[in-house]
Amino acid sequence: MCSRIRRIAIMSVSEPGQQQSLVQATLAGDQRALARVLTHIENDTESGRRVLDELFPHTGNAHIIGITGPPGGGKSTLVNELIRHWRKADRKVAVIAVDPSSPLTGGATLGDRIRMQEWFADPGVFVRSMASRRFGGGLAQNTIAVAHAFDAAGYDPIVIETVGTGQDEVSIAALAMTTLLVQVPGTGDGVQSLKAGSLEIGDVLVVTKGDRPEAAELARDLRNIRSIGLAAGAQESDWVVPVVRTSAINGDGIDTLVEVIDDHHRYLHDSGVEETRIRSMIAAEISVRVQQGLLARLGQQHDQHLQSLIDRVVHRDLTAVRAAEELLGGL
Amino acid sequence: MCSRIRRIAIMSVSEPGQQQSLVQATLAGDQRALARVLTHIENDTESGRRVLDELFPHTGNAHIIGITGPPGGGKSTLVNELIRHWRKADRKVAVIAVDPSSPLTGGATLGDRIRMQEWFADPGVFVRSMASRRFGGGLAQNTIAVAHAFDAAGYDPIVIETVGTGQDEVSIAALAMTTLLVQVPGTGDGVQSLKAGSLEIGDVLVVTKGDRPEAAELARDLRNIRSIGLAAGAQESDWVVPVVRTSAINGDGIDTLVEVIDDHHRYLHDSGVEETRIRSMIAAEISVRVQQGLLARLGQQHDQHLQSLIDRVVHRDLTAVRAAEELLGGL
Repeated sequence: MCSRIRRIAIMSVSEPGQQQSLVQATLAGDQRALARVLTHIENDTESGRRVLDELFPHTGNAHIIGITGPPGGGKSTLVNELIRHWRKADRKVAVIAVDPSSPLTGGATLGDRIRMQEWFADPGVFVRSMASRRFGGGLAQNTIAVAHAFDAAGYDPIVIETVGTGQDEVSIAALAMTTLLVQVPGTGDGVQSLKAGSLEIGDVLVVTKGDRPEAAELARDLRNIRSIGLAAGAQESDWVVPVVRTSAINGDGIDTLVEVIDDHHRYLHDSGVEETRIRSMIAAEISVRVQQGLLARLGQQHDQHLQSLIDRVVHRDLTAVRAAEELLGGL
Repeated sequence: MCSRIRRIAIMSVSEPGQQQSLVQATLAGDQRALARVLTHIENDTESGRRVLDELFPHTGNAHIIGITGPPGGGKSTLVNELIRHWRKADRKVAVIAVDPSSPLTGGATLGDRIRMQEWFADPGVFVRSMASRRFGGGLAQNTIAVAHAFDAAGYDPIVIETVGTGQDEVSIAALAMTTLLVQVPGTGDGVQSLKAGSLEIGDVLVVTKGDRPEAAELARDLRNIRSIGLAAGAQESDWVVPVVRTSAINGDGIDTLVEVIDDHHRYLHDSGVEETRIRSMIAAEISVRVQQGLLARLGQQHDQHLQSLIDRVVHRDLTAVRAAEELLGGL
């Protein structure tokens, strides 16, 4: 049964006419067509790339919002609250939850899928989990391509949620137009937050679990840090990074957060910063793809050479630096 | 004054004789020579690469230990306790603290340097902070090259400490022989830990702040997860991943942790797993370097082409996927 479904899905894009109808159905808002398109794009097959070619001219309308912060920071709960809000305004919302790959199974963990199941019955909400790959950039390679498909299908906003404290956060800032950085009260002191060095990538700082006693203090600390120019505001000086305290228990702060997100979207547009940001988003997307492509090429064409170089490094006969130089010379 | 010191340091490796004496002094344990070597290696200059060529045949003796976990998880405190223990046994200890780069300043934050200053006066301890770069792998590109220099200079063990929950952890597991994964009680539930998907990369799981009431429960949960095969032990089935509870307040667990680290080192050697691991460490090192080299080449030689492709993507004329294909075709 399962293999039959699979074959139908593959057939439908391998034939040009079928591909065309899948694209048309997706553009018309057919969720089942979109789900199949997403799978093809996520697997990065040639037919997936062709579907993306067709969908891409229809993109550029959605507000892509990144949400990042530590595990257990209440990101999924926050996203749930935001969805509820956007649904009241009748907006079609897409969520891409990027889970760290399991090195063991190669698959994504199921956390978010379980967490957000309350939206499964709502046709205006589409939640997609993706696994980040073991090496290379933190974010799933095809995250932004999946976002393009949602964009073409009329979803707006599109939320990309990642776990992370290090590179992930920086990557998401390069792929999203507005990045929300979640900070949790009571899990570390102010110095630790600074150490993570991640405040700078947030366009909006969100203090979740705002009902906790330490929340007000954390929000104040973040405002102080912001005011001395350590936050992202220092880079784009017209935007003062807001600090918003939210609580899932009493619903506080969500209205404000939604407004602030819209404010940032408007700011990007009115200031002309949007154009610069879109260019660097595209540059980042191309760069990740080129990197992956080159590594794949290295693996396929030069594996024997690589293995013999590794042998020489194992025997301390040459450094990995020189081995890389030699491989680069041959590429 | 500052620029004069700089010039002397650069001169001393640009002349072959001087380079030779710098290498000899480093091998003989001269800390000032080592400090200069580290700077050259970290900056990845050609003279740094030549120095590394000379030092590399003298490496392969140190036990490289990775320590990772969430910010505020007590990693630096733990490292301090381990240093104290190893110093009693008269071992020369090196610590490489990888801080996330500040995208704003490009530099590393100063957390660890400040934290570990109690060892500044001890010639048997060398602490080096490095900044991870904005894109590309999480870990500082030259981390492992710096570790090689410490190895040649007779430091053993060498600890690489990183902050992170996502890719960083996986990267460190690819560069270290033994990886300690720090888990903190009371910052999230068990499901959240699973979500981070990171347990699998730990050869040893350390529950810090072990005096907290939730610590025993967390340790028990981790043992349960381990026993159902979700932890790294499932990959290398002979090694049962130990869960060690430590407390900086009463010093509990550090003796056990030191023993367990030695056990793992012995296990790697006796089982033959060491050889496989060293090969994959080298492969990872080469791969990161090739990736960086290719990106640099792309930036230098193909920038105009890249910019015109970005223009076309901006106008939705082609996808980033196709832009990457075109760039790859020309490389």
